[in-house]
Amino acid sequence: MIPSVTRRTLLRSIGVAGGAGVMFESMRALGLVASPEALATPAYSPPKPGDLAAGKRGRKVVVLGAGMAGLVTAYELGKAGYDCTVLEAKDRVGGRNWTVRGGTTQTDLDGNAQTARFSRGQYLNAGPARLPQSHITLDYCRELGVPVEPFINQNANALIYNEQSGLAPQQYRTAKADVYGYVSELLAKALDQGSLDQRLSTEDKDRLLTFLSGFGSIGSRADGFAYTGTDRRGYTVEPGAADQAGVVLGPPPALTDVLASQVGRYFSFEFGYDQAMTMMQPVGGMDAIPTALYRAIGTGTVKLNAAVTKLTDGPDGVEVVYKDKRGKEILLRADFCVAALPPHVMARIPTNLDPAVAAALRFPTVTPVGKIGLEYRRRWWEQDDRIYGGITETDLDLSHVWYPSYGFHGDRGVVVGYYNTGTNARTYGALSPAERTKRALAQGVKIHGEKYRGELASAFSVAWHRVPYIEGGWVGWPSRTSGQYALLNQPAGRVYFAGDWLSYFIAWQAGAIDSARYAVTNLHQRVLAGG
Amino acid sequence: MIPSVTRRTLLRSIGVAGGAGVMFESMRALGLVASPEALATPAYSPPKPGDLAAGKRGRKVVVLGAGMAGLVTAYELGKAGYDCTVLEAKDRVGGRNWTVRGGTTQTDLDGNAQTARFSRGQYLNAGPARLPQSHITLDYCRELGVPVEPFINQNANALIYNEQSGLAPQQYRTAKADVYGYVSELLAKALDQGSLDQRLSTEDKDRLLTFLSGFGSIGSRADGFAYTGTDRRGYTVEPGAADQAGVVLGPPPALTDVLASQVGRYFSFEFGYDQAMTMMQPVGGMDAIPTALYRAIGTGTVKLNAAVTKLTDGPDGVEVVYKDKRGKEILLRADFCVAALPPHVMARIPTNLDPAVAAALRFPTVTPVGKIGLEYRRRWWEQDDRIYGGITETDLDLSHVWYPSYGFHGDRGVVVGYYNTGTNARTYGALSPAERTKRALAQGVKIHGEKYRGELASAFSVAWHRVPYIEGGWVGWPSRTSGQYALLNQPAGRVYFAGDWLSYFIAWQAGAIDSARYAVTNLHQRVLAGG
Repeated sequence: MIPSVTRRTLLRSIGVAGGAGVMFESMRALGLVASPEALATPAYSPPKPGDLAAGKRGRKVVVLGAGMAGLVTAYELGKAGYDCTVLEAKDRVGGRNWTVRGGTTQTDLDGNAQTARFSRGQYLNAGPARLPQSHITLDYCRELGVPVEPFINQNANALIYNEQSGLAPQQYRTAKADVYGYVSELLAKALDQGSLDQRLSTEDKDRLLTFLSGFGSIGSRADGFAYTGTDRRGYTVEPGAADQAGVVLGPPPALTDVLASQVGRYFSFEFGYDQAMTMMQPVGGMDAIPTALYRAIGTGTVKLNAAVTKLTDGPDGVEVVYKDKRGKEILLRADFCVAALPPHVMARIPTNLDPAVAAALRFPTVTPVGKIGLEYRRRWWEQDDRIYGGITETDLDLSHVWYPSYGFHGDRGVVVGYYNTGTNARTYGALSPAERTKRALAQGVKIHGEKYRGELASAFSVAWHRVPYIEGGWVGWPSRTSGQYALLNQPAGRVYFAGDWLSYFIAWQAGAIDSARYAVTNLHQRVLAGG
Repeated sequence: MIPSVTRRTLLRSIGVAGGAGVMFESMRALGLVASPEALATPAYSPPKPGDLAAGKRGRKVVVLGAGMAGLVTAYELGKAGYDCTVLEAKDRVGGRNWTVRGGTTQTDLDGNAQTARFSRGQYLNAGPARLPQSHITLDYCRELGVPVEPFINQNANALIYNEQSGLAPQQYRTAKADVYGYVSELLAKALDQGSLDQRLSTEDKDRLLTFLSGFGSIGSRADGFAYTGTDRRGYTVEPGAADQAGVVLGPPPALTDVLASQVGRYFSFEFGYDQAMTMMQPVGGMDAIPTALYRAIGTGTVKLNAAVTKLTDGPDGVEVVYKDKRGKEILLRADFCVAALPPHVMARIPTNLDPAVAAALRFPTVTPVGKIGLEYRRRWWEQDDRIYGGITETDLDLSHVWYPSYGFHGDRGVVVGYYNTGTNARTYGALSPAERTKRALAQGVKIHGEKYRGELASAFSVAWHRVPYIEGGWVGWPSRTSGQYALLNQPAGRVYFAGDWLSYFIAWQAGAIDSARYAVTNLHQRVLAGG
């Protein structure tokens, strides 16, 4: 590691001597360029067309599950000439990547039957709903021709509502202005008192004070660096023409009240590697991705309504038995199997695999997840509240409210009325769909008033832990180092496993894709090696 | 003012007694709801259809300038039955709201002639390019049926490059992680030392430490609250499948280096009332707004290539002389005039108005503004750098680099290579278009390497201070209280003035719209009163 001051001196010399282009390349060489261009290539890469000799083309692979991992497995193997069959227990592809539109039906494990009554063009992404810039998922969108548009993950006009604080909902912009203002005031005071002189030079202190002055919009030293509010909070009367200079929303609450409100707990969400803006979404619904994969692999490759009942691994191949729609059992033989089902679902399928494998499949813990889509007859969040997309954060059992990032200024829109996990998801999931809606509305009224109830057109909810063949939002590993995770990332005979749960991107489609590519790479290398 | 603690106690009681709905309405009544629903209605509102008695319909108004203020003036007056004629010196409507596409031509006051060679679907919003959620401009988009989409004004993957620091370009996410990390560490240390005990209770301190722990991702008290890096900085190896846990970009530079880099100076931009996400843009180019207004008022209402040469105010009406395309002078009579030109341009038109008016028109100071659109053959910022829209900030003379918020994953894209003001705008504006491009590329290479030069397809630049009939980016008031601003916000006889420069939203379309509505309201009230 070259110390940073030395690096800086070095770069200055290079810049002076060689000009900007040379300096840029030197920075790249030193690993100083933040651009992901410099990111290391993953240790796995799927087969390419022409990799397989003619005699090996047509090697048969049976893929269990047509979720993202299963579809990408078939897509990547198919490119190289493998002959894949995907067995999917449900009547659709995509798995948790599920977009609900008018006419979508769902019956859960408790017998709750719903048919969505959303208007034309309106939808709920019941599963994944946003794509980080860095994720490979966007590369698949590009390759498959799935158009994408921004997903608004952060909005200064969205609200924070902590019921326990007893305070009214507040715009993010207001909460940030106050917290950053007081934090700046306090640190400036401490600096001025010399409290941090051991850690900071005079130059450091001056630079930090300059930063705090802008960051917090605080007063000068003569004013005790006091935070007394700023137009960043918003206005009660907006600026306008002639003498309408605007009236800033204020004064800010006292420091102790701002701290007690605990609004600051939501701020770091937007710094997360996977959650920071820009986020993207496919135009028209997230299921555009599995739909495009489905078309690319050929719809005949996927057997829907095909629930696997038995898997047998053998020295020369695998045998899979599945039930078709009419309940008839069918036997399928293949050279390899890629099992791309949730681990807790896979664990229940009878196999002849090592019992350690079945035990490992039962090791991850399942997270209950719930989501509801509320279609409104009017986009009151835009018209009344000037909220264009984004997320309101709460301490209510609904956790978040999402405003749609599509259909701006249209007649209607679908708000995500809750997106919760754990106990809250179980609580809502235990209710009938009508009762879930009622509860979600009663909570939302606290934030948005009676229109939140009165202007509803229809609702559709999902409790992922009660969805047949999925039975969970996602899983977590109590430990990744206790053997089970490593075991399932290796083939069990001729059976490979894939899914977001076998990656470090759990609950992201990128995890499913990466895991599929990993399994496919390993399988292919084995075939190339004569296996 | 009810003190906040009392308000909180009051609201708790209301919440307990009356339930959520009652509590929400009470919060609203107390002015505690941040929603702009509570914003005061402006003191002006344009006429409505039917306001005018039959005898007064058809009152003639001549509007000078078909920029946003002029178009909105004609639009709002037209709704109520006024007979408007708009005189526009240029060969197009929109004024500074100007979208450059393939085939757009421009000759500036220095004789620099350009024809844009952008590909189909590619464009540069040479003037305004983003719409805040709160602005009335979006209401006009809704009313006129102009579709809108998000404009990405903030992107964690966009870069900060301070050449003077001698450091490499850095992603916003990395810069924020480091600055917020060290700020949190320092304040936590100061709190722990008791430096701020006079200002904070024990409970306050605990809450603030909890906030800082999350905000800065810092260590515990046992670790001295040290900031040692976080995955918010980004990765050199991304997480992925199997054993690819990811390698976090690190370690962070030393505190003194982070402060010396001055990256933090750019952070507060995104807190600004008018710049905070969500921002929006019309689909396909900003000129969709003037185009829609042009259609709504009837294209016959606007005379293009009509440069005003004389304005005479009289007791019963106004007379305007303009030159048509062939240089023929034409006299137009009307009951009123709304002059919606830049003040420094208006000041040069011979009139019989009070000399104080002409002096006032010369009072605002003009800001030079430059912008360049660089079309690339490949969207390398998405493909290589994973930058989807957003703005890179620099201390270079190009100031900012904007990545396009449309056409994601397409073949080509237009980057804004500079958007600068003052001295930098003058420097670029003094060059030929080819030299401007060359200079912008030489600067951009420092940020993005040689591809920034090598993959360019074409460029088009504008120096607003050298554009005929506009001659400036925007203006500022040396003082708003020294009489001139108030004078021009009143009619000069039968002549009203309008433009963003007569509002508190200078350089925003909302200012032009508000000002037009203000002038129209005053004019209409005068007509209703028999004037």
